Amino acid sequence: MSAIPSIAAPPPKPLLAALGGAARKIPPIWLMRQAGRYLPEYRAIRAEAASFLDFCYDAKLAAEATLQPIRRFGFDAAILFSDILVVPDALGQRVGFESGEGPRLEPIDSAAGFKGLREELDWARLEPVFETIERVKASLPREVALIGFCGAPWTVASYMIAGRGTPDQAPARLFAYRQPDVFQALIDRLADVSADYLARQIRAGAEAVQIFDSWSGVLPPAEFERWCVRPIERMLKRLRAATPRTPIIAFPRGAATQLAKFASLDGLAAIGLDTAVEPRAAAAALPPRLALQGNLDPIALLAGGRALDEGVERVLQGFAGRAHIFNLGHGVLPQTPIAHVERLVARARGAG
Amino acid sequence: MSAIPSIAAPPPKPLLAALGGAARKIPPIWLMRQAGRYLPEYRAIRAEAASFLDFCYDAKLAAEATLQPIRRFGFDAAILFSDILVVPDALGQRVGFESGEGPRLEPIDSAAGFKGLREELDWARLEPVFETIERVKASLPREVALIGFCGAPWTVASYMIAGRGTPDQAPARLFAYRQPDVFQALIDRLADVSADYLARQIRAGAEAVQIFDSWSGVLPPAEFERWCVRPIERMLKRLRAATPRTPIIAFPRGAATQLAKFASLDGLAAIGLDTAVEPRAAAAALPPRLALQGNLDPIALLAGGRALDEGVERVLQGFAGRAHIFNLGHGVLPQTPIAHVERLVARARGAG
Repeated sequence: MSAIPSIAAPPPKPLLAALGGAARKIPPIWLMRQAGRYLPEYRAIRAEAASFLDFCYDAKLAAEATLQPIRRFGFDAAILFSDILVVPDALGQRVGFESGEGPRLEPIDSAAGFKGLREELDWARLEPVFETIERVKASLPREVALIGFCGAPWTVASYMIAGRGTPDQAPARLFAYRQPDVFQALIDRLADVSADYLARQIRAGAEAVQIFDSWSGVLPPAEFERWCVRPIERMLKRLRAATPRTPIIAFPRGAATQLAKFASLDGLAAIGLDTAVEPRAAAAALPPRLALQGNLDPIALLAGGRALDEGVERVLQGFAGRAHIFNLGHGVLPQTPIAHVERLVARARGAG
Repeated sequence: MSAIPSIAAPPPKPLLAALGGAARKIPPIWLMRQAGRYLPEYRAIRAEAASFLDFCYDAKLAAEATLQPIRRFGFDAAILFSDILVVPDALGQRVGFESGEGPRLEPIDSAAGFKGLREELDWARLEPVFETIERVKASLPREVALIGFCGAPWTVASYMIAGRGTPDQAPARLFAYRQPDVFQALIDRLADVSADYLARQIRAGAEAVQIFDSWSGVLPPAEFERWCVRPIERMLKRLRAATPRTPIIAFPRGAATQLAKFASLDGLAAIGLDTAVEPRAAAAALPPRLALQGNLDPIALLAGGRALDEGVERVLQGFAGRAHIFNLGHGVLPQTPIAHVERLVARARGAG
């Protein structure tokens, strides 16, 4: 019996190849918040749902929003259109979104408040998310990968306690100092249900997942270790046990000097880098098995022109020679001109 | 002729000794925003001025506010009670403060707008600031040093362009990308007038000065270098020429991985470290001739109890053996209980 070479296997999707550690001459590209308000076709369908959360829970609309930027720009990955706050919502906390103001939750600031939440996610509530993934998978071009996501425990907890986004997470930090045991229990619960949530996204068809720790940059190092690094490690363990092969990206925004703490976590395929990270320094400091994702300043994309061109070049050169996924250092801003995104894609692919 | 030992020279003030590079068993201590709303005696006199800016420009009230925390807590340094926005005010930009909302400026977002500003500071407008310094100096205990301050060009420019505080400085970043030459001219002007302003504070009696770059943490490295590091270098040169001996502290909040860029600046006596900096790592990475100032989490001070005690201990141990000035990583929060500040001072001095 001689081995018969497979002639039918398609080449791996560029995103998954990079997440596997392969350096590519032209890095795969997708952008955080690539679906959303800067697209006229998004604004058109957004009007079809009463609230933002209704929109996220409408599988048809959410799938369409997920696909729109793929059709328009040909990105190498689609990312599930949803919100990190579906997790507190599915734990029973009241979550709403005020137009132009961002999320508003019924804030919880006591052990009793957390006791009132569910132990497990309300899977029926989240069913439309998984249906969204199935719908997207059915119509995604074969070379485009689908990314699922959730918020990291610290970031989600900071919203749950403050009831809104906060520049400094003061309410959550104060709560964690005053009632560390209660806060630890909340963080552990969030880590476990979030890992289960990602596993379920993967079973529905997500080919990679990203954990967004958008608000980790202001914690002192000991608190950063306890509330950001360890909970993500806990998620990785649980998720690895459920789905051993799906690559996991962590995006610890603001981690700065503490990025290396993530590099040593078992089971992490990639780290998303924010705008403040120096590409060359990160490329030199982090192990080559890790793919690095990022990190063009979204404001350079908004500005366009020379700022955009120089920014793209700096990112490409900084990560050249190692596994790299081109992305922004934070999400696309709503005012971003579409022509700037087209230019970014063309230049990142060497055609601009 | 034999040298006659001086027997009359008093020991140097603890703050100035630390700024001179001396490691002290008990570090000198002062707190950013040590004067202000958390003090009932401040709230009592604040009511005597119509607006916050009127308060800052009333030498009698501002001097009293400067002295209040010295009387109550016996800090090793007083810091001029004022605001970084007196500089745009003295350049002719309209500056106001909305109660509980922070500053509001008539935003400037064009080259023409900047042309409408003065080239030099309106010294008559700033006269009460220097009178404040003189008044404070006259009644400060002999061992207590007086610190003057101003905002760094980047931080002040971000307020001038956005018209208010912004968590991500998006308006200034966008302006800098789109019109780098206009922005450079603004930054250069701010660097020069701010250095002149500090020199004048020193002539009035300030014994050290601090440059607050409160909003430097989100810039990409090249922009950080251009808009934060170089302008402070420019200020140092100009200030050193005017007042060669007065120690200068820079507080680049959020500088994280880029702290070392400040360490190499000629003429800097100390770096203020924010909450996210690991004391031991900074102590190891930065040259011993630099005093390090910081960096207890102000939210640990607000929380009190074990969080406060452990935080103080971590700071003391992290900087032990080198020139250190005990401070917070950011300002005292208005809700902070006075008993927590008393406890902090006692423990930082080994008496708690």
